[in-house]
Parts: sequence; structure tokens; C-alpha cells
Amino acid sequence: MNKQYDLKKNKFLKDFKTLLSFPTIGADPKQKNAMHECADYLKNRLFDLGFKATLLETTSHPVLFGEYKCSDLSKPTLLLYNHYDVQPIDPLELWDTPPFTPTVKDNAIYARGAQDNKGQLQYVLQALELFGGQFPINIKILIEGDEETGSAGLKSILSKEKERLKSDYLAIVDVGMKSKELPAVTLGVRGIATLDVTLKGPKQDMHSGSHGGVIKNPLQSLCVLIAKCYTNDGSVAIPHFYDTIEPITAAEKDLLDLSFNETHYQKMAGTAPIGGENKRPALERAWLRPTLEINGLYGGYSGEGFKTIIPSTAHAKISMRLVKGQEPETMLSLVKDFLTKECPDGIQIDINLHKGGGRACMTKASSSFAKAAKAAFEKVFKTSCAFIMEGGSIPVSVDLSEASQSIPLFFGLGLDEDNIHAPNEHFSLDRLQKGTFVIMELIKNLGE
Amino acid sequence: MNKQYDLKKNKFLKDFKTLLSFPTIGADPKQKNAMHECADYLKNRLFDLGFKATLLETTSHPVLFGEYKCSDLSKPTLLLYNHYDVQPIDPLELWDTPPFTPTVKDNAIYARGAQDNKGQLQYVLQALELFGGQFPINIKILIEGDEETGSAGLKSILSKEKERLKSDYLAIVDVGMKSKELPAVTLGVRGIATLDVTLKGPKQDMHSGSHGGVIKNPLQSLCVLIAKCYTNDGSVAIPHFYDTIEPITAAEKDLLDLSFNETHYQKMAGTAPIGGENKRPALERAWLRPTLEINGLYGGYSGEGFKTIIPSTAHAKISMRLVKGQEPETMLSLVKDFLTKECPDGIQIDINLHKGGGRACMTKASSSFAKAAKAAFEKVFKTSCAFIMEGGSIPVSVDLSEASQSIPLFFGLGLDEDNIHAPNEHFSLDRLQKGTFVIMELIKNLGE
Repeated sequence: MNKQYDLKKNKFLKDFKTLLSFPTIGADPKQKNAMHECADYLKNRLFDLGFKATLLETTSHPVLFGEYKCSDLSKPTLLLYNHYDVQPIDPLELWDTPPFTPTVKDNAIYARGAQDNKGQLQYVLQALELFGGQFPINIKILIEGDEETGSAGLKSILSKEKERLKSDYLAIVDVGMKSKELPAVTLGVRGIATLDVTLKGPKQDMHSGSHGGVIKNPLQSLCVLIAKCYTNDGSVAIPHFYDTIEPITAAEKDLLDLSFNETHYQKMAGTAPIGGENKRPALERAWLRPTLEINGLYGGYSGEGFKTIIPSTAHAKISMRLVKGQEPETMLSLVKDFLTKECPDGIQIDINLHKGGGRACMTKASSSFAKAAKAAFEKVFKTSCAFIMEGGSIPVSVDLSEASQSIPLFFGLGLDEDNIHAPNEHFSLDRLQKGTFVIMELIKNLGE
Repeated sequence: MNKQYDLKKNKFLKDFKTLLSFPTIGADPKQKNAMHECADYLKNRLFDLGFKATLLETTSHPVLFGEYKCSDLSKPTLLLYNHYDVQPIDPLELWDTPPFTPTVKDNAIYARGAQDNKGQLQYVLQALELFGGQFPINIKILIEGDEETGSAGLKSILSKEKERLKSDYLAIVDVGMKSKELPAVTLGVRGIATLDVTLKGPKQDMHSGSHGGVIKNPLQSLCVLIAKCYTNDGSVAIPHFYDTIEPITAAEKDLLDLSFNETHYQKMAGTAPIGGENKRPALERAWLRPTLEINGLYGGYSGEGFKTIIPSTAHAKISMRLVKGQEPETMLSLVKDFLTKECPDGIQIDINLHKGGGRACMTKASSSFAKAAKAAFEKVFKTSCAFIMEGGSIPVSVDLSEASQSIPLFFGLGLDEDNIHAPNEHFSLDRLQKGTFVIMELIKNLGE
């Protein structure tokens, strides 16, 4: 494979630079044309690889869909998922090289999207190219343009495109490894549900001298209310919060790599990993247990010096991470009912449950898809590949897996050091090559 | 008196308009000259009234000091306190007439400072003028230029001006009445002490998916910590918080007008007055009991939509109102020690205790000064005058009372409807006249 790769190396780099030069900031209305141009460019690349390629119009940016039908119809179908939109580039002054002028330095390529997700897309396309137009299985590829902004476009077409998307396996190529040397297959992600809470006290801000002690203080009430959501041991105190969790068998749990370097984590985070249900292991808490987190608090005065007011309102932004068995709507209702019931007299509560949450998903480590993926990584990296999970959420992955009736897995060669979503994003040329081989091995393994 | 007043009415209004036309925004460095010009103008007015007047230079704007020595040296000395600085004028677009172009409309005068404090100063000066240069007691008057910004200038000269300030009675003419028909003498104010609290968790904001459940959340910790400061019945749970309060006798308490119109309050505030130690009457909580209030909370994301972070820091701005017997420094230490002790593991706490707090002060309703003041109001308003207190704080009043070794009382004809500190501030010409007569009666009463 290395020889094949070497022959194409210059072409691959040229193609990658072209892909990175489209300023596909999906959130920026000014880049609407760039989004279309990039999608068209990718459509031509898929066509050149022997795919039937179609741009599917959505309520937002187009979704690019490509399909290769293999001659042996008994073979399974793999659906590959990537995205061509990227994060905004500000603060621009912190970039060493222009974000849409891809620059190679120290065996890495620097540009917005160099890893997330154009780098991971590029090695998928390189893998497909190295097959030379003949694949051992059926392959579908979906490349969306709204991932960084919540996948609204893709979601808008899922129900009507079920037939086109139908597959056996879904590879979401948008995650990372344990470290540069240690590859991993991500078996699942947690779900998410979010809400805003507003407490209202007096109809306007009141002087805290004249009215202090007389009127209920919404900030104090908010603290008391939020404190009631937790027990002293760090778990969530809201009744029935843990009731519907689908248990994981001991055998499946044993296949997960729950090893955790506390010293390394403490150095990275600057504080000990002792949050949440801290009698359980850290990665069990991050992957297999739900959370209730306060993501924002605001109300009253926050400027320099002091302002002696009892503010009219107090606000909190709250999110949950969910695990298998927990429905976002049901969990939001639980939280809303609890906060409403516990809200003190003299204070009005206004709760805004957000749409767009998503369920958790998890594919078993013992499944054939997980085994094929693990084997692909192990062949390329010549080391054991771990089964891990992601505490974060990729809500569209669950929707896409259901619409395509396929088993989802999360792949990727990303590392924390890649500066995704930040200035000087980059991806190493070494991982670009390894990623290519991993995807090739995966495809071969699924064809056997 | 009415006849005397009528003869001077036009001159008084002209003088008042001149006083209001100086743009004496003490906080605005551009108005430094205006501050000096206004102080000079007032110095000349005091001189014309038969006073020896001096501008005392301070670390900030000058303090104007005037003195009249009565021929009968056995007579007591009254120290009158006012201020010539005013609040800023923004938002200017909400003013119906220019803030420094005094305008009479519907028997009221509109201008910045029309009530606070130039209106209350004007009737003091009118009262002095109507005595025609002969007073039955010794009179001192102090007019400062930094009240709205914390009285730093006045505080800077108090220790060296003790001899000059020495008096028997101190009348702080800067407060209000119960209502347009119901005058009141304010016996005291609560003290104040303020602090900032910062909780630090991870060294940077962390993704709440990947790290939720692993790391301690500073916002959640802040809520839990603040909630611990209160008992379920609304009182402060910090040990020894109430220990040093100087008890008030039942007889003195009986002289206070603790009557409280709950319906009226609820209409004004938009919520029921059920905060704090709500088993006690509302005005007892506002006047005679200390509080711990959260004045600001901030941390994490507060914009539109959502950002799933565990923030690095969480902040609270906290204030106490103090009553007689409570030292600001001691109370700040109590709070600091409690928060530090209760701060959870995995979270660092950083507490910034502010300087510039102040003790409470309270003059007994049974004192001769309080009786003289009450009689003055009752003669002018032809109705009973209440003894009230102010839940807010005027820290310099305690300092001034101590430096001058005088008994303090708080006077004023202000009403909530005067729009002080807001656009279209105004003061009724009727109260300008009544205030004049109240000050005259007070001076007469103290001479008897």
C-alpha cells in the first residue's frame, strides 16, 4: 500500500489543498457560494472515483451523496459520513498562516478544516481512490454542509431519503484516537438535551439596601434551586433521573478501555477529576452515566466594582448528557417538573426546553462491524486498538443511523493537539496516510 | 412664614435655577471646572447669608464649609449636610427637557439634581436666608462634591477637620418621606460590606460532553456554596452572623413606624414581600436586621442559543447590610471563612473583600434631637410625623457623625416619584417651600 500511496502522494496533497481552500464556513451567509462550489468540486471527485454522485438540496446547504454498487449484490453496504463545512476562523490575528491558504510545515498541513473534517474526508477519498474504481462491497458516502451548526440541512431530508441511504454499516468519520500511537474505535456517543431557566422576582431591579430582606432575591433562589438538583455525593437528586438507563453487560463493559491516567488528566485540566458521581471510575462517568451540567449562570451586576441591586431576573443554561434508554423529551420533562415544583414562593419560573436534542447510541464491541474496524486499525498501527466512547454528542449520527437502518460506529484519527475549532488548526501528513490505509482495510474486512 | 416666603419666591426660584444649571457630574472628569464654579457660587451664597465660608480642598472635589456663630455661646451647634454633585445624565434621549436647563412644569422643576441633592440643598439655603442673618443657635453647613461616587473627598479630610466640624447635632438632608402627605424623620441607616467571590475549576473552559461527570463544575459548585449560606426559613446560616447585633429596646421599637402596606408593596414590586427572615415583619427585616444578598452571578455561556461548556470560573458579587453592633471587617471575615471552609474539593476559591464599607447608625427616637425634628415636620405638615429608618446605607454619615462628635439624623422631602438618578428628575415647588419651613422650625426648636 505504501508504494501505491507514494505514487499518488503529490496528487493527494494537491487535491487536499484545493479542498481546504474553499472557505466553507457554513454559519456565514456570505459563504453560500463557496459552500456550493465545494460541494460541486467534491461531486466531481466522487464521479472520478467511479461513484454516482448527487447533490441533495436541503433547507440549508446541499448534502453530497455518492454511491457505488458492487457487482456481487450479496455484499454488505457501508455508508461513510463526513462533512465539508468548517468552523468560523476568528480570532484571525492568532493564525500564523491564512486559514484558507493551506500551508505545509513540519510534516503537517495548516488550515481551517485541516482535521475537522476535511482532513478526515480527504483520507476517506484517498482510500476510495486507491481502490481504482473496483470495491469489494457496496459503498455509499454522505458529505453534509451543516455539521458545525447542528445538521439542520441533513435532518431535513432524512425521512424522504431513507431508501437511498439504506445500508448495513454507518462509519461516522469525525472523531479521534486515544493518542498518536494508540488508535481507537468509538462505539458510541452520549445523547444531549438542553434548557434555559429564568427566575423572575420583582418586576424591576430593586435597591438591595431598601429592599434587602424584604423581597426574595432571584439569584439566591436560583442557587438554592440548582443546589437541590444534586445530592451531597455529586449525583443528580432529581427523582427518576437514572431510572430508565439501559444496563450494559459486564462482558461488554470489559471490552471498553476504561483506563484513565489521573495524573495526565489533572495536568491537562488543572484540577482533579472528582466531579459527578465520583465513586464510579472517571470514564464510566464520562461515557456510561448521564449528567446534569450548568453551562451558564447570569443575572444582576457583573461589571467592575459593585452595584447594590436585587435583580429582577436570574438565568441558567442547563444541559444533560444522556445514555442509552433515556429519551431527551422525557428527561427534559423530569427536570422541568422538578424545578417547577421546587421553585420558591415569591419567584416565578420560566423554563424553555430546547428542540434539537438527541439520544445516545452505542454499538456493541462484540459486533462484527466493531471487530472489522478494530482489525483495520490494528493492521495499520501495528498495535492493539481500543474500544472507547465519546462523552459528547453527535445527535445527527443517531438520526442517520435510524434513517439508513445501519449499525453506527465512530472513526477518526483526530488528536487534541490538532487545534480544531481554534486558530492554527492542522493535521499531520502521517495520519493522513494512516487514515487512508485504515479506511482501505475496513472496506476489505467488511468484504470478507 | 408664608408671607415671608412669598416675598422671596421669585428670587428663590432664580437662585435654584442657577444652582441647577451647573453640570456638576462629579464622576465626569470633564466637569472638574463646573464643580469648582458651583462650589464658588455656593460659597458666595453662604457669605451673603451671614456665614463664614471656606472651600476645603480634598483628594477629590472641594468640600464647602460654612459656619455661623451665635451670640449666645450656650446654644447648641447644628451641622447641616448636603452635596452639590449629581448623578450622570445618560440616557440623555429620555429627558423631555435638557438636564441642566431647569424647567418649571406643573408646579415642579425638572433638572438633574432637582431633588438629589440640589433641591434639598436649596430649601436648606432658603431656610437660612429667611432668618435674615440672625440665628438662635450655632450653625455649620457642609456641602460635599463626591456623594454620588462614595464621598472619597470628604472622607480624606475628616480626621484633620474634627475641630472645625465639632457639633451637637448632624442633619443629613438627603432622604425622603413616607408619602406626599406623611412626613418622616429617618433615625438611622444600615451599614454595608461587599465582596467578590470567584470559584476556579479547570484551567480553561472544558467541553461539557467530553468532561461532564468527570470534572467539578464551578457554576454548580457556586450554587451549592451559596445555597449553604441560607437556612430553609430564609435566614443566614453562616455561624455567628447574628451574634453581635445590639438589641433595640421594645420601647424604642414601639416608636418606629413599622406599618407596612403589603398590597401596595406587592403592586409596586410585582411580587410578594416574603424574602429574608420572613417570620419577622417586613420593615423590621429592612431596618433592624442584617442581610446577605447576591447582587450578581456570572460564569459560562450567557448568549443566544447554547454552548456546552463547563466554564473555568464562576463569579458572585455579594453584599451585606449591617445593623448596630456589626463591624464590616468582622462580618466580611465571617463570610470569607465560611465560604472558604465550605468550598468543595476540586474547586479553588478566591475572595476579594472590598474596602469602603460602613457601619450602621441609629439615633434613638426618644432623643431630644429626634423630638425636635418630629415637631418641626408636624408643625409644617399639620399631621403626625413618623420615625422611620432606611435599609440602605450612607457610609459617610457614620464617619461624619463620629468626626463631628454629633448625633445624626436623616431628613428629607424626597419621594419615589422624583426620578432621582433617572431621566426627568424633578422636585415639586410645594415641597421646596415645605422643606424651607421644616428646616426653619428645626432650627427654632433646637434653640429652645
